[in-house]
Parts: sequence; C-alpha cells; structure tokens
Amino acid sequence: MRQFVVIGHDAPTTPEFSLDDLAGGAGRVDVLCRCVTSAFFLSHAIRADVRVHLVLADEYTVSFDGNTLRRLNPDERSTAALVRNALEEREEAIGQIPVETSPGVSLTRHGFGGLLDSVSGEGAVVQLHEDGEPAGDVAPPNDPIFVLSDHRDFTAAEQERLDTHADRRLAVGPEPLHADHAITVTHNYLDTAGFTRY
Amino acid sequence: MRQFVVIGHDAPTTPEFSLDDLAGGAGRVDVLCRCVTSAFFLSHAIRADVRVHLVLADEYTVSFDGNTLRRLNPDERSTAALVRNALEEREEAIGQIPVETSPGVSLTRHGFGGLLDSVSGEGAVVQLHEDGEPAGDVAPPNDPIFVLSDHRDFTAAEQERLDTHADRRLAVGPEPLHADHAITVTHNYLDTAGFTRY
Repeated sequence: MRQFVVIGHDAPTTPEFSLDDLAGGAGRVDVLCRCVTSAFFLSHAIRADVRVHLVLADEYTVSFDGNTLRRLNPDERSTAALVRNALEEREEAIGQIPVETSPGVSLTRHGFGGLLDSVSGEGAVVQLHEDGEPAGDVAPPNDPIFVLSDHRDFTAAEQERLDTHADRRLAVGPEPLHADHAITVTHNYLDTAGFTRY
Repeated sequence: MRQFVVIGHDAPTTPEFSLDDLAGGAGRVDVLCRCVTSAFFLSHAIRADVRVHLVLADEYTVSFDGNTLRRLNPDERSTAALVRNALEEREEAIGQIPVETSPGVSLTRHGFGGLLDSVSGEGAVVQLHEDGEPAGDVAPPNDPIFVLSDHRDFTAAEQERLDTHADRRLAVGPEPLHADHAITVTHNYLDTAGFTRY
C-alpha cells in the first residue's frame, strides 16, 4: 500500500467554489486534483493499492481509496467535482467517522494532525521535501505514507507535528517540483526499484 | 535543450471546443495540456530550456518555447485556452512558417512527419514507449527530442516515420504511464543523473 497525504493550505472547506476557476478562487484545488490523478492513474488502469488524503485547510480530509474508487477521470475538473460533492456532505462528518460521499471517496473531519495520528500506524511516514535526502540513495520503504505540501511550504506547526511521526525526509530530485509531479516521480521511484540503474 | 513532441490523435483542429469538456468533446486536450504543464513547471519557476510541440490530429502543431513563454498557468483550462487561441490564427499559418499566437506559443501547419523533419536535426530523437529499453540503463542523450503519444498508441504510419528518425526507444519505468506523467519522470531522469543511484 502506498499512501499520499497532501496538505491544501488554501483549499475550500465548503462546496461553494467554481469548477471554472480551480487555480484561482477555488484555492488551488487544481493542484490537489492533479495529485489525485498522479497518484491513481496508469495509462489504462487505476493503481488499486493506493490511498490519497487531501487535507483541506486543516479542517477536513477527503480520502480516495484505489481499491473501491469509481468515477475518477483524469481531468482536473471532474476530480474537483468529487471534492465538491464530498464537501456537500460535511454536516454528516461527525467526530472522526468517515462519510463515503462517492464510491471510494470519503470525507472525515480531520485536520493534518488528526489525519497523521490516524494513518501513521499503517506504515512509514516519509516527508517529501526538496531539502530531503536523495530518494535514490534510500531503499524504498514498505507501506510508505508520503506527506507533501501544496504550492506552499509546510508551516512551522505542520513541520513540528510531522517531525514526531516522520521516519525520514526525502527529495525525489534536485529540482523543486509541484506536488503532483513529485507524486508521479515517487511512484516511478518505487516502480523502478530493480528496473533501472540511473 | 529538452524537447517533447506529443501526438494528439483526437485533438481539435479548429477553436470550436469547450473549455468545460476537455476530456470529452475536446478530443482529450486535457492530456495535451497536462503534458505542457509537466514539461515546463518547476515548483516556482518555468524550465526555460524546454520546447513542447503538440501535434493536433496530424494537421497543425502548437509549439511552446520556455525561453519566451508567458501567460502559462498550471491548470489545464488556461493552457487549453492558449491552444484554442493558437487555432484561431490557423488561417495565418501558411506553408511551414510558424505564427506566434501568444508570447512563446506558435502555430505551424505541420503534421507529425513535417514536424519530425523540422526538429530532428536539433538533437537526438528518442521515442518514449512502455516497450522501450529501460531509460535508467542508458546515459541521458544530449539535446533529446522525446516523442510521445497521447492516450492512444502510435499508429503504424507514425511508427514507420519515427523509425527513420529515432535514435532509440526508451521506457521510463515498468508501468505504462500517461504522457504527462512520462514527461515528468523523463525530466527527473535527466535532472537526477548523478543525483541518485536508485
């Protein structure tokens, strides 16, 4: 199982955002949508053994589970609609009980800390950051839970929380990448272990 | 210089397509737009030394030059608008003379063969294909011109044309990837030469 946690600092917490302005008024939902696409799509298949958690403004988390995920299309707009649909059910998300809002998509009233507490027992928490150790110098961890930030860097509070859970901090390359590109490269890093030498 | 040629088999050749249906009625322009994003965007910068050529239904080519590119945003919709704007100038594209339709974006009346003839002298033509040799086993070529197909495989005619120009056929990983994800991994393959061992 590969999991990706993406922190959406400016993400909406209500469904009142426009699918026509994802990169603007919608708080960079476009970045989060591309992260979902990068995490799940192969050329003509979905990666089943993957979970993605989008943390929306430290208030809600929308989780995608590749084993049960349906109705996911590769374009940003349709993925944003799944996020918007999830937020329409936010009143149903009470305590820490996830609400399935469409097949394989669920909403939980979890901020970053709460999510990290709930998933950190499921594998090795790995922060992806341009200042980390080169990923290629490290054997791929088992059941990795990769934590990324959106277009903003981690806040001091997020970093502090992360430091209590993260086993390591890795960089997937020498260039600072968009979160969705980092996810694509991370999959390749795991896929190619034993496939390429570089 | 890194160049990427992406064949858009179903891409529109007129500007009458909807920005709201890029993955459907617009002939998978969403794939082509994500290829542009993957080719140019770093976290907070544009890769200047990159060119991308989108071949639209073997009739026109829209080219993006990182050295002069302006008004590129990371979301699909705004990139699709640049492609649509380019197609609005298609009557101006006479013979093989490119027409600049916005800063760093130009339209040429080139199908795949014509484009390949025009760029193949500028570097090493490399086909990216899941059946290729593992990229990691090969030293990164100088001034590579990577050729990819969209959601469809290369046609027999395209493959034949390519075989007369391509120096090699590489796979960037064991999994078949979307074209935009392959571009992201290919950049990383070039970026990390000497950075990681894997």
